[in-house]
Order: sequence, then C-alpha cells, then structure tokens
Amino acid sequence: MSATDPLNFIEDEPGQQIGKGTAMEIIGEKINTTRKSVQQAVVDRDIDFIQDLARKQADAGATYLDVNSGMALYPEEEAADFEWLVPAIQQVVDLPLVLDSGRQLPLETALKLHKGKAMINSVNGDLQSMETIFPLVKKYGCSAIALTSSKKSGIPATSQERLKIAEEIANECRKYDITLDDIYFDPLVLPLSTDGKNGLIFIDTLRQIKKEFPEAKTVSGLSNISFGLPARKAVNLAFLILSIQAGMDAAILDPTSKGTVAIIRATEALMDRDAFCGQYIAAFREGKLNF
Amino acid sequence: MSATDPLNFIEDEPGQQIGKGTAMEIIGEKINTTRKSVQQAVVDRDIDFIQDLARKQADAGATYLDVNSGMALYPEEEAADFEWLVPAIQQVVDLPLVLDSGRQLPLETALKLHKGKAMINSVNGDLQSMETIFPLVKKYGCSAIALTSSKKSGIPATSQERLKIAEEIANECRKYDITLDDIYFDPLVLPLSTDGKNGLIFIDTLRQIKKEFPEAKTVSGLSNISFGLPARKAVNLAFLILSIQAGMDAAILDPTSKGTVAIIRATEALMDRDAFCGQYIAAFREGKLNF
Repeated sequence: MSATDPLNFIEDEPGQQIGKGTAMEIIGEKINTTRKSVQQAVVDRDIDFIQDLARKQADAGATYLDVNSGMALYPEEEAADFEWLVPAIQQVVDLPLVLDSGRQLPLETALKLHKGKAMINSVNGDLQSMETIFPLVKKYGCSAIALTSSKKSGIPATSQERLKIAEEIANECRKYDITLDDIYFDPLVLPLSTDGKNGLIFIDTLRQIKKEFPEAKTVSGLSNISFGLPARKAVNLAFLILSIQAGMDAAILDPTSKGTVAIIRATEALMDRDAFCGQYIAAFREGKLNF
Repeated sequence: MSATDPLNFIEDEPGQQIGKGTAMEIIGEKINTTRKSVQQAVVDRDIDFIQDLARKQADAGATYLDVNSGMALYPEEEAADFEWLVPAIQQVVDLPLVLDSGRQLPLETALKLHKGKAMINSVNGDLQSMETIFPLVKKYGCSAIALTSSKKSGIPATSQERLKIAEEIANECRKYDITLDDIYFDPLVLPLSTDGKNGLIFIDTLRQIKKEFPEAKTVSGLSNISFGLPARKAVNLAFLILSIQAGMDAAILDPTSKGTVAIIRATEALMDRDAFCGQYIAAFREGKLNF
C-alpha cells in the first residue's frame, strides 16, 4: 500500500494485502468417489459421465478439478483408477487437477500422466505423510495441500496449535528444498453447530498463517462449517465471503451450485482485487455468474 | 474480550467487538413511493396493498419498516400521506417505522401517531437539516439516520471527509442533548463500477465511525454498490456480509428477496454473535431462511 492510500486499515490485515490483485482458485469437488454416482462411473469406466462432470465444472468457472478415488481399498486399485481418470479428464478440459490421495503409488501414477502443474491433496503434520508426499512435490514440481492436523493432535481446537503444525510442515519443506509458494495450508473447519467460535477460529488461523508465511497459500473445503444446521447454503456462502476477505487463496467447492462463483468474483471486486470489475464482467459475459 | 480469548485479532477490529452479541436491524425498504405500484396505492389509499407489503416484510424478518412518501410535492400532502400510512401499517404489524423524510411537518404528523420508538430517515451534515430533525428526535425520543454528506461536500470521496461530517453531526447532537446511541450514521455507498475502491472506502468509513463513536450505530442501504454491474444480487449479498463483518448495526433492504435474511443471520452466527446458532435455527423454524 502506498503511504497516501486512504485505506490504511488494510495494513492491519495481512491476508487482504497479500490477496490483493489475485483471483481465488476454484477447485471443483465433484469428481469424488464418496459420491455414489461417481463411484459407479469409475467402477464402470464410464468416460462420458466423468468427462461431463469435468466439463460442467470447468464451464461454471473451476480453475482446478479435484479427483478422488479414495473408495479404492488398495493402492494398486486407486493407481489404476487415476491412470484412467487423469487422461480422461484432461482430454476434455484444459485445467490442472488436484490429486486427492495420500498414497505414493496412486499419486506417482497420476503425476506421470498429468499435464501442467498438479496439486496433491493432501499432506499433514505427520512425519510419515511428509516423507510420502514431499519427495513427489519435489520430483514432479507440483504443489500440495497441507492440513494443519496430525494423528497425534487431530484437528486442534485453537489457532495456536494449528499454526504450530503449519510451522512443523514449513520446517520439513525446507529439508526437501520445497518453497512455501507451493504449499496451500488448510486451516481446517469444524462445525459452527458444535461451537459458535469455530468460524472465527478458522479465519484467525488463516490470517496467522498468511502473516507468518506470506509466501504460502491457503485453501479449504468450507462446507463442514454448516454441518448440523438448516439452510446450509446460506452459512456456506457467508463463510466463503468472510474467508475471501481474510485472504484465502483457493476453495474446494461445487462451482455448479447456483450463485457460488458469482459471489466469489463479486467479493474479489469488492475487495478491489479486480481492476474496473473486469473479471466480474468477463465472467458474466461467459455465463458464469448465474444467481 | 477476555485476556485468554484466542481470537485476539478481534481486538484490532472495533466493529466486530461492538457488534458482538447483537442482531442487525433489518429495515424493510418496500413501502416507498419511488416504486410506481406503491405510489399508486398511496394515491388511491389502497389499504390492502400497503398492509400486504407490511405483512410480507415482517414475515420475512424485517425488524423495522421504512415508509416513504417522497413523491408528494408539498409538505402538507406528504403529511396527509403519513397520517394515513402510519396507522394503516402499525394496525397489522407490530414493528417500529423508519419515517423517510427530511421535512418537519410530515415527520411531526407521523411521530404523533407512531407507536413505539420511530427512526427518522434522515438528517445530514447541513445545519438546516439538523435544525429541522434534532428537535424532533429530542421531543419524540426517536432515533435518526445521519448521512455523512452535506450540500457543500456532496458524498465525499474519502473516509476522512465523511468522518469529519460525522464529527460535526455528533457535535451538534450534544447541543440538543441527544445521545449518540440514537444516531445511526450512514457511511454512504458509491458504485463499485465507478471506482474499485468504493466498497473498501465504505467499510473503512464504517469502522472509523465505530471506533471514534463506539456508542453510535451505523446503517446503510447497500444496493447502490452494484449500480451498473451485472448479476447485482451477488454483489449486494457479498457487500452485505462484508458490512456485517465490519460491525454494521442496521441495513435498509428488501427482506423478501430470496436468501437475504438467511445470509444475514448466517453471518451473525459465523461471527459468534448468535449463541448456539439459536437465532439462526429459530428463524429457520419461523420460515425466514428461504435460500
């Protein structure tokens, strides 16, 4: 910010400053075998179904597509699924994929086939997890989502404890010569229905991560916030906007849900991250702002 | 905030702290004669039409109803309209009204008939406006919306200039022995399409007002933000959420617009202003959270 900028309150909010001028990455969540129809399509090798899901999310404004075949019991089975899924999807959409697995064999199989810069989803604070994921990040030059949780701590209740895990992950990155701009920290969301502070704890963790590691990125799947509440979409959208305001760099969500992409691009315009509302108006012209 | 509260970032954001634990006032905007159908109903003294508009907004979650007969050319005409409108509305809804006029005769006519604590909409930084409105605020024990604008300055471009007008209004209040908890400052919104900073300037002004006058309240009609943009509702809802986060106490809007009240109550729950999501769940049970 220049010294003459009237918006000096932004100085206190590192997330806003860092996010300024950049559009948030939208990671489409729909190709996930925890969804029954997707699981069936993967089992049947139904390429039309998968390619249709990929196209619909891309058309709605996704900038990455998450690909999950976690219902596969064995690494060999998950690797075979990825071997089929990755080229099938990238044949129809020009988007990088988020490879949703913690296992070495499926990930390496996918990374060998992947075009562009992939993202691994995910590593966590466990040494074993980092020993599996970080060599792949280095070898294939991809990025990774890092959960601020571990086997020992689970999802810690406080932002301090989550930040401590982020610090451990950052330290380990240095050993592998991985720069933090390839790490998307996930501050992790617990439901609001169990504790009214859970939304604020998430946002506080996000801001602290951005403050301590300005070069690192942040990501989350946000919908857990509304677990157990009625009219979940209102809670999810409001939480999405508050997270963008706090500087979140990427979100895992359903881009085809009415209004979601519109509200993301609107929030960026409101935060003055979209000069002359250019991206917002362009997205409207591409039919991506249905509300 | 207690010293052990982990959410220490809130300390830097006075708006959040002040707003904590309170629900935002929702001022229904629909009884306004700039809308053709309302103007016709007022001319025709069509009580069913007006009472229906009042009921619908109350049912949707309004906590105040704005009443505007500003199409009336003469004060006597506007006073006669208010004389008919105020009892007609309060006969069917148990809500206080926001009397939308700057003229003495219509306002005093309405205030004499009004049940409960009314709000005047509005006073501004002009001495003449304050000389008209403040004696009524004092005499009838009502509150007033104070625009941070004046004839001389218009709507100033910077938050500093708007704050300066708020200071002048606050000084004048003291002369009339009006306490600032009866003043709802409106930081005023200019369209995002003319300057990408206009959303941030509004929020900055809001925060500075809350900081300098912690006992005063803030209000705005927000929809001007999206003037000239496509998919206006996405911009309006995102801006509403960012304004609530900054500590706004009241908003003038259409509560019957799908999702609007749901997203207000969801945001309050996310800011931990709604213990155990009680208001949110109650609003859902009353059918007020359609999304």
